[in-house]
Amino acid sequence: MKFICNGTQLSDALSKVTKALPIKKTIPILEGVKLSAYGNNLTLTATDTEFAIQKTINADVQIEGDALVPGKLFAEIVKRLDNEDQIEISYTDDQNIVIKYMDSITTIKAMKLQEYPPIQEFEYDVEFAMIQKDFKDMIIKTIFSAATDDVRPALKGCFLEIDGDEITCYALDGFRLAIVKKKLEMPVAKTAVIIPAKNLSEIYKLLEEDDQPVHISICQKRIAVDLKHTKIISNLLNEKYTNIKSTIPANYEMTVTVNKKMLEDCLNRVYVFSKYEKSNLIKLEIKGVKLNVSTTSEYGNINEYIAVLNDGRDIQILFNSKFILDCLKVIEDDYIKIKFTTPTSPSVIVPVEGDRYLYLILPLRNYSR
Amino acid sequence: MKFICNGTQLSDALSKVTKALPIKKTIPILEGVKLSAYGNNLTLTATDTEFAIQKTINADVQIEGDALVPGKLFAEIVKRLDNEDQIEISYTDDQNIVIKYMDSITTIKAMKLQEYPPIQEFEYDVEFAMIQKDFKDMIIKTIFSAATDDVRPALKGCFLEIDGDEITCYALDGFRLAIVKKKLEMPVAKTAVIIPAKNLSEIYKLLEEDDQPVHISICQKRIAVDLKHTKIISNLLNEKYTNIKSTIPANYEMTVTVNKKMLEDCLNRVYVFSKYEKSNLIKLEIKGVKLNVSTTSEYGNINEYIAVLNDGRDIQILFNSKFILDCLKVIEDDYIKIKFTTPTSPSVIVPVEGDRYLYLILPLRNYSR
Repeated sequence: MKFICNGTQLSDALSKVTKALPIKKTIPILEGVKLSAYGNNLTLTATDTEFAIQKTINADVQIEGDALVPGKLFAEIVKRLDNEDQIEISYTDDQNIVIKYMDSITTIKAMKLQEYPPIQEFEYDVEFAMIQKDFKDMIIKTIFSAATDDVRPALKGCFLEIDGDEITCYALDGFRLAIVKKKLEMPVAKTAVIIPAKNLSEIYKLLEEDDQPVHISICQKRIAVDLKHTKIISNLLNEKYTNIKSTIPANYEMTVTVNKKMLEDCLNRVYVFSKYEKSNLIKLEIKGVKLNVSTTSEYGNINEYIAVLNDGRDIQILFNSKFILDCLKVIEDDYIKIKFTTPTSPSVIVPVEGDRYLYLILPLRNYSR
Repeated sequence: MKFICNGTQLSDALSKVTKALPIKKTIPILEGVKLSAYGNNLTLTATDTEFAIQKTINADVQIEGDALVPGKLFAEIVKRLDNEDQIEISYTDDQNIVIKYMDSITTIKAMKLQEYPPIQEFEYDVEFAMIQKDFKDMIIKTIFSAATDDVRPALKGCFLEIDGDEITCYALDGFRLAIVKKKLEMPVAKTAVIIPAKNLSEIYKLLEEDDQPVHISICQKRIAVDLKHTKIISNLLNEKYTNIKSTIPANYEMTVTVNKKMLEDCLNRVYVFSKYEKSNLIKLEIKGVKLNVSTTSEYGNINEYIAVLNDGRDIQILFNSKFILDCLKVIEDDYIKIKFTTPTSPSVIVPVEGDRYLYLILPLRNYSR
C-alpha cells in the first residue's frame, strides 16, 4: 500500500473515525485503524465490533492495499501534520507504516491486518432519508432520558419508530420518558428498532446542523447512517421495548402555561440547594396564577415565584429537579405547557401547540424518599 | 448588615474572590467568604490564611456590618442571579443570610464570623508599579519551571529580584531554569523575595492584558498586589534561594539560530513518540546547517530535519523534549538562539537580540537514563 494525501483531510478523517475506537482497551487489535487505499480513495475504518465508522477521502494511490495502524498514535501524529499539503504513507514491508513529509520520516510499527475483524455486509430491509439537522435534533432531545444502568437492557437504547412519513424517537429510564417526532422525506414501511444510546450519541457528534438529507438503512440487526463520505454502522438491541402508550395518561386535570426561560433560570437556582437532597427533591406549588418552587436543605432554603396561566385547580407536587431541568435545557420554545393530574401521577411537558415533543416525569412521593 | 447591590457585579466579584478558597477542605471556617458592608461599598474577602483576595464593589448599604457566608454555595446562587439589577442581602438575626430578588427569597445558613481569621495589616518596605500585562507575561513565561515536588521548598516559589528599574523573575526545578526581565515604572530599592508559585498562578489569573500599572507592595513576609478594586495578598517563602549566577555557563562553544514555530511543530510531533520514553528523551544532532531531531520508542521512531544557522561546530545532545517545548510555548519571537557547549553541559535558549529571557536546560546523559 502506498498513497499521497492531504494532511488536513487525513487529520479530519482520523479525528472522526477514531470515535469508534473502543474505550476499554481489552482487545488490542480493535485499537487499530484500518487504511484501505484503492482507486482514487483512501478509506479509514475503526470499530469496536458493535459500532463502526468509515470515512473516505481522496488519495493519489500508487500501490493499492490495506494496512492496520495503531489508531491513537497515528491520529496524534497526523493531527500535528495538518498543515502539510502532501503526506506520503506506505506499507510495503509488512512491518512498518512509513509516513513521509517534507524531509522528515516517521515510522510506526504496523498491527496485524489479518486479525482485524471485517465489517460485515448486510442486506437492509428499510431505507429512508431525513434532514440531517432533524436527526441531530431528535437525538439530543431524547437521549438524556435513556437508562444508564444495566437493569433493563432495552432501556439503554433509544426506540425508533417509523410509520408512514413520521419518525418518533423514545427514551425512558423508568422515572421519565422523552418522545420527539420528526418528518421523513418520503413515507416508508412501518419499522421499529432500538439503537444503543451510547452509539446514538457518537452518531450525534458526527451529524451537522445541515439541511441536507442523511440516508439511513435498517435491517434486523443493524442501522447504517450514510453522510456522504462518512458511513456509521451500529448494531441494534434485540430486546423488547416497554409498552409506552400505556404509561402516558389519557387525560389531565389541569394545564399551566409557563415561560420556559423563567422556569429554567429558577430551577437552576433551586438546583443549587436541591442537589444536596436525595433525588434533587423540590416542591412545585401552584395556586391560581402563581407557581411557587421551593426546596430546603441543611445549608438553607429557597422560595421562588413565577407567574403562570392555569386552566384548572391548584396542586402541590414533588419532583426531581434535574429531570425537569434536563427537558428545559433542550426545549427551544418561549412557552411550554405542563399538565398535571394528581400529586402521585405522572406530569407531562408539551409544546403550547402541536405534538412535536412530550416529556413525562414521575413525581416523587414524599420528602423522605 | 443589609445592602442592595447589582447581580452582575456581585457575581463577578465572587468568581474572583473564591479563587482564594482553600482547595483542601480541612478547616471549615476557611470555606467562608466574608462580606463587609460599610459606606457605599461591599468588600468580599476569601483566604486560606497564606493567600487572600479582597474585592470591593458599590453597594447601597442600609445597615453596616459583616457576615460570613459559605463561599461555594453563595457563589453558585449569585452566579445564577447575574441578570438581576438589584439583589438585597441581609444578615440581621445572627443565623441566616437572606437574599431577596424579584418576589423570591433564598436563605443560607451563616457561618460563625467571630471564628474567621482577620487579614492582618502590614507595613510594607518597598512599593513599586509595573505595567499589568508585563507582570502577567513575566509570570506565564517563568512559572512552569518552578519545582512541583517538596524536596527543596524554595524551588516551589518564583524568585523575584528588583534592582533599580529592572525586575527579574527566576524559576527552577533542578533540571531547568527560566529567567525573564521587565522594566518598572520607577527605580526602587534593591529587593529579593520568593513567592509561592501556586499563589503566583492565582495572581496571574486575576491580571489582565492591560497597559495600566499594577501596584505591588513587599515586606519581609508578604506581597500585596493592588488592582484597583481587587487586592491580592500572598505570604512569601522564608527560604534561601539557589545561587543562580553560578549555574549559568559564562561561555558557549556554538550558537544555532532556528525558526521558533518550525522547531515547536517538530517537537510536538516528536513528543508523540518521546512521551512513551523515560524523561521524554529525544536526540538533537546538529551537522552544519541541518538540525536533526529524532527519537525511538517501542511504537516506532521519528526523524525530522530543520534548517538552522550555525556559527560553530557540530554536536549530538539528548534532552527531555517537554522541557524545550514548555519554553517554546511561551516564546513569541519568530526566531530564537540555542547555545551549546558540550553534550553534558547546560544549553540555553535566548532571544536573537537582547536578554529579555533565558531558558537553561540540562541535557540528558544517555538513552538508558
